[in-house]
Order: sequence, then C-alpha cells, then structure tokens
Amino acid sequence: MLTISQRGQHMPASPIRKLVPYAEAAKKRGTKVYHLNIGQPDIETPPQILDAVRHSDFKVLEYSHSAGNESYRRKLVDYYKKVGIDIRYDQMIITTGGSEAIIFGFMACLDPGDEVIIPEPFYANYNGFAVEAGVIVKPITSNIESGFALPPIEDFEKIITPRTKAIVVCNPNNPTGYLYSADEMEILRQIIIKHNLYLFADEAYREFCYEGTHTSAMHLKGVDDNVVLMDTISKRYSACGGRIGAFVTRNKALLDATMKFAQARLSPPSFAQILGEAAIDLPDNYFDTTKAEYKLRRDTIVKRLNSIPGVFCPNPGGAFYAMAKLPIDDSDQFCQWLLESFSYNGQTVMLAPATGFYGTPGLGKQEVRLAYVLNTEAIHAAMDCLEKALEAYPGRKLN
Amino acid sequence: MLTISQRGQHMPASPIRKLVPYAEAAKKRGTKVYHLNIGQPDIETPPQILDAVRHSDFKVLEYSHSAGNESYRRKLVDYYKKVGIDIRYDQMIITTGGSEAIIFGFMACLDPGDEVIIPEPFYANYNGFAVEAGVIVKPITSNIESGFALPPIEDFEKIITPRTKAIVVCNPNNPTGYLYSADEMEILRQIIIKHNLYLFADEAYREFCYEGTHTSAMHLKGVDDNVVLMDTISKRYSACGGRIGAFVTRNKALLDATMKFAQARLSPPSFAQILGEAAIDLPDNYFDTTKAEYKLRRDTIVKRLNSIPGVFCPNPGGAFYAMAKLPIDDSDQFCQWLLESFSYNGQTVMLAPATGFYGTPGLGKQEVRLAYVLNTEAIHAAMDCLEKALEAYPGRKLN
Repeated sequence: MLTISQRGQHMPASPIRKLVPYAEAAKKRGTKVYHLNIGQPDIETPPQILDAVRHSDFKVLEYSHSAGNESYRRKLVDYYKKVGIDIRYDQMIITTGGSEAIIFGFMACLDPGDEVIIPEPFYANYNGFAVEAGVIVKPITSNIESGFALPPIEDFEKIITPRTKAIVVCNPNNPTGYLYSADEMEILRQIIIKHNLYLFADEAYREFCYEGTHTSAMHLKGVDDNVVLMDTISKRYSACGGRIGAFVTRNKALLDATMKFAQARLSPPSFAQILGEAAIDLPDNYFDTTKAEYKLRRDTIVKRLNSIPGVFCPNPGGAFYAMAKLPIDDSDQFCQWLLESFSYNGQTVMLAPATGFYGTPGLGKQEVRLAYVLNTEAIHAAMDCLEKALEAYPGRKLN
Repeated sequence: MLTISQRGQHMPASPIRKLVPYAEAAKKRGTKVYHLNIGQPDIETPPQILDAVRHSDFKVLEYSHSAGNESYRRKLVDYYKKVGIDIRYDQMIITTGGSEAIIFGFMACLDPGDEVIIPEPFYANYNGFAVEAGVIVKPITSNIESGFALPPIEDFEKIITPRTKAIVVCNPNNPTGYLYSADEMEILRQIIIKHNLYLFADEAYREFCYEGTHTSAMHLKGVDDNVVLMDTISKRYSACGGRIGAFVTRNKALLDATMKFAQARLSPPSFAQILGEAAIDLPDNYFDTTKAEYKLRRDTIVKRLNSIPGVFCPNPGGAFYAMAKLPIDDSDQFCQWLLESFSYNGQTVMLAPATGFYGTPGLGKQEVRLAYVLNTEAIHAAMDCLEKALEAYPGRKLN
C-alpha cells in the first residue's frame, strides 16, 4: 500500500519553522522581518575556527571514525575538564549536531511504547525524535509564574510508571531560559536513583548562564550509568550549520550499543570536526565577551517586554531565550498575523508560538518564545513592532 | 529500569567496521594493511570543490534551510537533468549523507512491523536503519553464479504480504557491483504498480557503470508517486566525509511528511553543501577520468581473483565493489585471521565478510566483498597477500 506511515502523519511540524512560508511572503512584500523565532545567533563564528577549516590541506574528504576523529575527542577531554566534567575520550561519540545525540539516546535506551518524562515547555523537537523512536513523551508542567522552575518531586512520582525509562533535562533551558539550581539537580539525582532511570542532559547552552552557576548532570555523584550528556557546539561557538555534537556517557554498555547506531550512519561531518577541534583552543575569555553580549540583550528584551501593558516575562537565568505571556487569544494565530497582516514602519517580528513547546494540549496559548539572538538595536526595533502589534491585534485579550 | 533497548541490542554491528580493532592491532605490530574492506576511495576529492569551501567567506556558520540551501537544490536540478532525470528543486531534501535519506524513507513510508523487500546480498546498513525504524527486512536471494542478477519476479510475488510497503534497489549495487538492466528495472516497475509499493532507489554509484548504461528508477514511467531516490555525493566526488545526500521524490505527500523529519534535525551540514554545489560545475569529463581509473582497477582485481585457484569472481558492471567466492570455511573467521595471524612481506589485506550483507542466516560464508578503492599497484600487492593467505589459511575448504 502506498501510504504515509503513522509516524510520518503524527510527526509534528516544527513550531519554529512552520511559519517560515509566511515570513518568506512578508519579505517578498518588502517587509523587514526581525527573527526572534529561532536560536540562530547573529554572533560571528570565531574567525580562527572558520580558518582552521579554510586552511585545512587534506586531499581526500574521507569518512572519519564513526565515533568522530580521535584527535577531536582527545581535545574535548580538555574542554570538559575546564567545565568540571571528568570524562575519557573513549566515553564519547561525536554526533551530527545535538539532534543526533538525542535520537541516539532515545533509540538505544527506549523501545516503542516506553516513556520519557520532560518538564514542559520543552524544546519542541524532542517530540519529533520521540515519534521517530516510538517513544511516549510524558510532560510535567512548569509554569511561567515560577519562572519555569523544576516542578515538585511529587509531580514526577505521580507519572512514573514501569515503562518510564528516562527524564530529559535541558539546562539552561530552551525555551524558557531557566537555569536549574544545584538543589534542583540534586532532586533529579534522587529520582533517577530511586526509579533507576536515565537522565538525558541537554546542555547546549552551558556557557551562557547569567545568574548563578551551572550544575551539569555529569557533576552528579553516584549516577555514572544513568547520565547521558547530549551536547553540541552549535550555540557555544555560533556554529549551528556545522552539525557537530556529542553523545557522552560513562555507561559502557550504553556507549557500546550507541556505537552501533553511529556505525550505521558511517561518520559525523568531517569539515566541522576540524572546526570543533580548533574551538577548544579559543582563548578562555572567548565566552566572557559572548556572554556579556547575550546578558545585555537579555536585560534589554526582558525590560522592554515587561514595560508593555499586559505582558509578563520572567528573567531567564541562562541560554538566549525568554518566554513571555502576552495579552492575546492564541499565540499561533498571533505569530502568523504578525507576518501576514501586520507591519510597523515596514517592519515586523517573527516569534515562536509557545503551544509547540508544550506536550499538554491547550497550554501556551498566551505565551511566545523570543530568542535574543539579534543585537540590541534590532531588539529595540523588534520590541517597537511587538508593542504596536499588541495594540492593533484583533485577538487582544487580557487574561 | 536502566536497560539497553531491544533495538539497541538487536542493532547489528557494522560488518565493514567491526574488524577495525583487529586492523588497528595489526598496524601497531607494524603490518601494512591494504583496506579493501570499505568504500573509502583513495581518489582525490576534486581540488576545485574543496577550494569552494576553503575560499568561502561567510562570517556566521548558520543553519541552512531544513531542505538544504535553495541555491544548491536549484543547481542539483541541472545535475539531474544531465543524467536524464527531470525533477524540480522543491522535490528534493538535502540530507546528511545517503544514510539519512534512507532513514527518512523508512521512517516516512513504513511503520514498525511493516516489511521491505531487498535483494540480498545488500548494503549491510539497511539492516541497521530497519532496526531503528522497527521495519522488517525480507531478503530475496540473488546468487553469485548469475553475477547477482535480479531474482525472478516469482520470488518477489512469493514474499509480498499485506505489510509489504517497499522494495529497495541499489543500482549499481553495493556490495555486488551488479548493474541492473533496463529490463530488470521494468520488472521492478511492474511489481510496484501491481502491489502498490514504494521503490527506494539507492543510486550512489550512478556514474560508475562499465558495461551498458544506467537505468535510474526516476526514469521509470507512471510510477512518480512510488519512486524515492536516495542519493549521495560521497562516492561520486570522493567526498564521503562531507555527509551530503538527497531524498528525491515526485510524491508531494511523501515529501511533505519527510520534511517534518528534516525539520526536527534542523539542517544538513553547511560546509559540505558548498562543496556539493560547486561539484555541479565540474567539467563534464570529470567522471570519464574517474571511471576509467575504476574500470582499470576492476579489470585488474577481477583478473587477479579469478586466477587464484578455487576463487570465483563475477565481473561487476558498476560501482567499485566485487564479490568473490573463496575456498574457505567461514568468511568472518578468514577476514579476522588475515588481520590477526597472517602477513606476507609485512603486509596483509582487510576484506569485508559477505555474511553481513545477507539477511538469510548462513549465506555468504564463502564470500567476501572487495572494494577496489586503491590504485592498481596496491591492488596487486593486496592480491599477492590474498593468494598467499588462501594457501596458508587453516580453514581452507573447496566447496
């Protein structure tokens, strides 16, 4: 039978990318669109790491080792040491972006029908990877009033079943920007020990913490077999297009199983492994500059948002996202309307509706995610648009 | 529960890569190893396409469109036109290697428990992708005596069930090198129409045909919705490490569904898309030179193989692989023995045991795959090793 598979039908369209055709149409009409919808930083990729690729002198663009170049993995040991993570080069597999690290984790740890608990709102593509793996996402709601803090331990206990195999924690969080505290990480440690669960830690934004310090899941004691780090260089070095990440675990049986998935797809991309390896040699102050820039942007966007009548935006502790509650009826309609029917001085803004970040239907209808990946001037212009748009939007609705 | 998933346990180790530790040990002992085990050509990547990457001058290594850069897709239209395939730029999704195109096809067309028919021996990683997708591979045996021609139509009819959703054809074939004729492709066309099946066409080696001409699945009439082309630039331009392929179909519903999988993983690697785009501008005679080199190698290796007592190697019509029947008891043991216990003048040869290319247990125990990706001098040296090895091998066994 010539049909689309069930999973092909159930596969969610990316809430971040599904509005792209409307943005393209707006641009064709001559409207300038400020992209706060996607975590594509405007920060320049460090020129010296692009140069490492440009000055490479190999003659054959070969497959690498399925786990990635050994030289790169050995250098990553140094990187992880700097952030307090003690790991060996043979405890990691270089992946095609963080995306592939997540897919590998779902594939190697969970079977179809198994359950993974994820605090919502969460990175929408976890849904897609879960559909690919036949895994069921059990969301556990965090809310905007608390700034999206970790839900209480009782909420976890309530939904754990014999089919629960893992918890995903994204820290600092995408989409909320929330930075989990050491105490919250300790709670997660206790849950995974008590219920013998994997903890999948997505720490793509590790370097971008503005309040307090980062506690990695790899810092937790006594859970070496439980913890899998799903990492990526995309945001760290503004190198999203490289598609280089890492699957890191001290659990040897899991690494061995995962290696078979890595072998099936042959190898991660070779060019960007060169870039990733060069990035380890960036001066220690590289992140200081980048972090200061993001902090300035965060302060700017949060202040502007909270000054708009009816808008509430908790101050995010890390990453480069903010979630805001808006006086609107429906965030999907509002975000589409911004592109289709609104402009201010020939400009508009593209946001990500929060509905796509919630697993529970109906949640997030008044919330949007804003990625502060543009400079402060652009952020001000975008906030001008948003302010005017909220005045003009026909579906305006205060709680 | 902290367990490896069933699919993680069932996932096959790569038959091509599982002998790697033995090869590494041999090299550490000082033995030179001729790698005929893997399709990693020694042919230089065209310098002008590496230069396209090296001379690129962007400042931010951004995500591309999830379907790949539009400029690249538009150029690919020209490439496909040259090989007689009429396709639009919006009928393709750029993938991370051919591997991802295959995974996308399995994911979007088949559900767990659905069946795909593949003539065996077949590219071993189809097994891995099938395990990931929960899909059942139904092998249909082609044999070395016929040079691995397409099995008769009755063999297909016999194993088609209501759960059969697709046939995979790799043409020219990896691992056999067999080039399917226009008549054989017509038979496949009739089967997919009669039973309403997808035809997944892996045409990675399209340019490397030494006898007769290539019939693409995309040339077949009246099956626009059935055919999916799973393509890659890896072998075509000796650019395996780029990890750039393409998922090409005229079936709009399928393309739309597949696009959701593409969005979930964000984008294919950016660097190698630049390389792929530049490759379309290579002079038309680029393939003539490469093809002549491969043909010389094929002629060399096939002649040498058939001159060894007890060895039979049918003449492959395309790709850069040959399958040979050897006078041995067990190809897995023999290939391991070559690396562990044998050397001739300080040299040995690494081959791929054919068992991993068969879906039917027990088949391929006297067969190996040889990738003629080394120059003729190296091929001669490798064949010297093989000849001596077959004399010395304790498990020597004529039929």
